[in-house]
Amino acid sequence: MSYYLLTEETVMEYVKGKLPAFVEGEFSCREIGDGNLNYVFRVWREEGPSVIIKQAGDLSRLSKVPYSRDRARIEAEILKAQNTHAAGVVPELYFYDPEMNATAMEDLTGHTIMRKALMEGEIFPRFAEDITEFMVGMLMGTSDIGVSHAEKKERVKAAVNPELCSITERLIFTEPYLNLEGRNKVFEPNAQWVKKNLYEDERIRLEAAKCKMSFMNKAEALLHGDLHTGSIFVTKDSTKVFDPEFGFYGPMGFDLGMLTANLMFAWARATCAYTGVTPKADFVSWIEETIIDVVELFKSKFLAAFGEAVADPMLKSRGFAPWLLGELLADAAGVCGAELIRRTVGVAGVADLRTIEDEGARAKAERICITAGKQLLTYRFQSMSGDDYIEALKLYR
Amino acid sequence: MSYYLLTEETVMEYVKGKLPAFVEGEFSCREIGDGNLNYVFRVWREEGPSVIIKQAGDLSRLSKVPYSRDRARIEAEILKAQNTHAAGVVPELYFYDPEMNATAMEDLTGHTIMRKALMEGEIFPRFAEDITEFMVGMLMGTSDIGVSHAEKKERVKAAVNPELCSITERLIFTEPYLNLEGRNKVFEPNAQWVKKNLYEDERIRLEAAKCKMSFMNKAEALLHGDLHTGSIFVTKDSTKVFDPEFGFYGPMGFDLGMLTANLMFAWARATCAYTGVTPKADFVSWIEETIIDVVELFKSKFLAAFGEAVADPMLKSRGFAPWLLGELLADAAGVCGAELIRRTVGVAGVADLRTIEDEGARAKAERICITAGKQLLTYRFQSMSGDDYIEALKLYR
Repeated sequence: MSYYLLTEETVMEYVKGKLPAFVEGEFSCREIGDGNLNYVFRVWREEGPSVIIKQAGDLSRLSKVPYSRDRARIEAEILKAQNTHAAGVVPELYFYDPEMNATAMEDLTGHTIMRKALMEGEIFPRFAEDITEFMVGMLMGTSDIGVSHAEKKERVKAAVNPELCSITERLIFTEPYLNLEGRNKVFEPNAQWVKKNLYEDERIRLEAAKCKMSFMNKAEALLHGDLHTGSIFVTKDSTKVFDPEFGFYGPMGFDLGMLTANLMFAWARATCAYTGVTPKADFVSWIEETIIDVVELFKSKFLAAFGEAVADPMLKSRGFAPWLLGELLADAAGVCGAELIRRTVGVAGVADLRTIEDEGARAKAERICITAGKQLLTYRFQSMSGDDYIEALKLYR
Repeated sequence: MSYYLLTEETVMEYVKGKLPAFVEGEFSCREIGDGNLNYVFRVWREEGPSVIIKQAGDLSRLSKVPYSRDRARIEAEILKAQNTHAAGVVPELYFYDPEMNATAMEDLTGHTIMRKALMEGEIFPRFAEDITEFMVGMLMGTSDIGVSHAEKKERVKAAVNPELCSITERLIFTEPYLNLEGRNKVFEPNAQWVKKNLYEDERIRLEAAKCKMSFMNKAEALLHGDLHTGSIFVTKDSTKVFDPEFGFYGPMGFDLGMLTANLMFAWARATCAYTGVTPKADFVSWIEETIIDVVELFKSKFLAAFGEAVADPMLKSRGFAPWLLGELLADAAGVCGAELIRRTVGVAGVADLRTIEDEGARAKAERICITAGKQLLTYRFQSMSGDDYIEALKLYR
């Protein structure tokens, strides 16, 4: 059967032939996607099983620009790798249908987007444990640590992703510092401060350039590539990383850096303009602990898993794992710094900051983030502990 | 016309249809290759033009193992890139015929293999200038310095070379330190010395492991990948780099490091067991100058060419080019050290050392090389000048 675009009418028939839970009987369907490239349907039985069907279209939905459906294949392969190396922390993959460019995966109804929940002051005690499982599992299972080197080279080749890497290169590692296209969105009350402390700082630009070079050239492990709190679904007892469309082989510290930055936005909002349900002191203390735990659990799990996963006899050399971890943590701190800066001044800001209504509070929260970003980017080789991230947040007064 | 294996009989007919200089008249042909994978023919007209035809077979010639003819395509693409970015320092490419997996290129009759010439004490005053043109030209023309980042990612993908990289990973970065397969060839009088100074040195193993990780993960520029003095044809006024079959995208310092190591073998032979035509003092002084010049000319040409080639506005940041050069030189010194060690103790030794007849002289020359190798590998971040390479050679007494 050749490709056709699914609709609410045809998706039920399509599912019927594909999944044992939906062979017969009554069930319901709704299109729930609002993305620009994909069609997303929820199919469910009352009191029974449910499934998400995601299909890549031929054209982008709004601008009708042709879209390489091959991306759906790569994305499904990434989800498959995540199911292998980080099962439980990603939606379960039921099948990928290459003819239809459609993926069937676990329905995460009941979860909420973590960024939104953090802005509402909710806390998630499992989060640091879960997300470090995800990151360490993926690094071990896709890098030269745990994969034969020849096999890994083939995988790198299959996952080359110029279009989406180009977005990262521009939006994270170029535009925030140069504003060449005039698309930065600097909060007006901070305009002079940003000019002086960011645009005119040639040293921070140099450090960002070094991180950009590393991003473009270090094909170490299969990254999520966009691991911010808007790419994570949570409940009190579940964490699910989704939307791996930016996935590619890059520096091992990348996901850790982007994630910590996005937890730090939640801290900046909470300290400057808290409106959440949990008492403020409790939330701030939990988010600080979580930032520290993410870094520290990552470190201990990385070292423990390394010993289990490593096959190459040279990589077993005494001292190799701590050295590699140190390089990775420096890359992570650099990416964290770049993400803190770009989500504050760049075209794609975060709601944590941009929805703060009080002008003074927002200006302060943004300066906190830029100051922390500069600190971590500059001193990335000295930022080896969770405490360094918290100290960076407390630099601006 | 589909693929068939060329012979001395058929190659002349084949050339006739392909090159204007060989449309009619009498000409001659001889098979000159002795490689295991390729068939190489020289076709020439008396007092007239000549050409080399190189064809990849389906099976290796000795062991009859099936061989991916796709390698011939990749090799031709590399030669094409070299013709673009380092014209004059590589054989001119006349055509590549994908049907026949055959490449027609400049005939280098009259040149000699540089390693052999150095062992005979010949000097080549142009060499440092020429080879630095080659290396810097290739780095600018194939890295993110001079190529659009999206285009470069596609090129990296097309040049992925797991089989031949695996040889480098094993022979340069693993076996010399571990001898797991028992294939190292340690000169018997040095056996105890090598055991103590190499096999039992866990710190040098760690440094080699770091360089291995970098080799496997840093896809910076299209390398020659095997740039030793046996891959270079020379005359007094010509330098031609050939045989790019190991080419792939790797760390920018790799070729520089391998090359300097192979010049250092010539120094070690000359100081311990000279048999050449030039007066010994003159040869030693020339080879020292050449090692220094290769590093220093590389540095000045790299910085000058960087300014011309760079397009990315972030890579134009003040201080970026010297930083990148420093990283590159550290990688180069690491590779130089690893090459010095592996060509002395590993399965694929160099004639410069292994043909020294006097036992004491050979033992000393080999210790000089291993000592220099350890020095450069360990202090690679402090080895930024040609003088550091000469000092390393003079450490062992």
